[in-house]
Amino acid sequence: MPNDIVPQPTACALIIGNEILSGRTADVNLGHIAGRLTESGIRLAEARVISDIEKEIVAAVNACRVRYDYIFTTGGIGPTHDDITAECIAKAFGVELEQNPAALAILEEQYRERNIELNNARKRMANMPAGSELVQNKISGVPGFRTGNVFVLAGVPQIMQAMLEAALETVSGGTPTRSCTVVAYLSEGALAGPLRALQGDYPDIDMGSYPFYRVGRFGSNLVLRGADIASLEEAAGRLMTVIDELGGEPVLEK
Amino acid sequence: MPNDIVPQPTACALIIGNEILSGRTADVNLGHIAGRLTESGIRLAEARVISDIEKEIVAAVNACRVRYDYIFTTGGIGPTHDDITAECIAKAFGVELEQNPAALAILEEQYRERNIELNNARKRMANMPAGSELVQNKISGVPGFRTGNVFVLAGVPQIMQAMLEAALETVSGGTPTRSCTVVAYLSEGALAGPLRALQGDYPDIDMGSYPFYRVGRFGSNLVLRGADIASLEEAAGRLMTVIDELGGEPVLEK
Repeated sequence: MPNDIVPQPTACALIIGNEILSGRTADVNLGHIAGRLTESGIRLAEARVISDIEKEIVAAVNACRVRYDYIFTTGGIGPTHDDITAECIAKAFGVELEQNPAALAILEEQYRERNIELNNARKRMANMPAGSELVQNKISGVPGFRTGNVFVLAGVPQIMQAMLEAALETVSGGTPTRSCTVVAYLSEGALAGPLRALQGDYPDIDMGSYPFYRVGRFGSNLVLRGADIASLEEAAGRLMTVIDELGGEPVLEK
Repeated sequence: MPNDIVPQPTACALIIGNEILSGRTADVNLGHIAGRLTESGIRLAEARVISDIEKEIVAAVNACRVRYDYIFTTGGIGPTHDDITAECIAKAFGVELEQNPAALAILEEQYRERNIELNNARKRMANMPAGSELVQNKISGVPGFRTGNVFVLAGVPQIMQAMLEAALETVSGGTPTRSCTVVAYLSEGALAGPLRALQGDYPDIDMGSYPFYRVGRFGSNLVLRGADIASLEEAAGRLMTVIDELGGEPVLEK
């Protein structure tokens, strides 16, 4: 592998919310986080969906924060009783939950502008683990926060996305993974042998095979991923040749 | 809680696949599994998305299979080199991976009917941990399997869904969780106090609050979930009254 390739930090997403596990709400945050981390040169190594139960959240945060460079949580930072993420992060880090003055100042300004009372429930959104830094967002104004290597983001997708952008501005990724897809009108079973041989020749390229059925035809999307673009292009070229020889009408998609 | 309520077994979903973590593919299996388990009286307590790496899969299976009554995995049971789920389940259980004669017979019949060679790559799909039972599907014909309390299903959604139905026929759920949603045109911050008080009165009802913005108005979906329908209806009635008093125009959705 060339020397100018910077290793990628790893990350884990913790999607907190009973509504995902009950099937009531389809999660859209994971796909967005996955795509943006990949673009930013951060490898999303794992994601977990966990319920709104304190000991579950604390256990998952502690299991993952020592294992990965960054954790991104979504959900549970609103004003209602089921919003317990901030308390749980404080417990996981063994620090106090305290009212963050900068966060409170933002809330006071937001609610004054909207002419809404900043009641005690809303003030809870300024409670953060000691030592946290704010993660701002321009959509709702109400900030998320960062405690250690854990970024705590909202669950509402539009707000989560704004917070994620703010979070990503503060971390350095490695060399982004490049990928290309070779479409083959061949079944996975026909391609498996040649693909395995090619994977052996390119250990730094991650080769995945995904069957599809479209416009009345079966085929396979062969996805090649890696940091070294020269190696990626060489492997894709060889794969195109193999598929062509098998009559699979290869098409390269970037 | 009434005596005729049967406790629900717990489950964990393990979504295996680099394509989800890279953001290339949006997972749709989790939402389907969540919904069908809920309908079947099984509580999906956790879900994990993990990469196609042997030690990660083995570790996740072993961490979760002792913790939950059932595990449902998706992905990694096709014919290509990146399909390693069966080997990993065998390692997790400490048993041999062996060719399952019943699975092989199904493959032989399937491929003979389609006039396609059953090559070595395709024959790999009959390799299963010793002692596994088949989980059939009518879509592709190629079976998944069950090892202990772990159901190993395909990643292609249509095939996964067929296998899940076959799997669910073999397990007993508890009393299904009922739910209802009270729509309120009030912000979460306005509702937080009364909702917390109501939650205190109904510890067996899980109350969740989810903000929304639609047709130009902000509001909150208040989701009540529980096994005891009388308690659920009583709590929903009280919540409707509270919202009405606050001018929140409550609407009950089942």
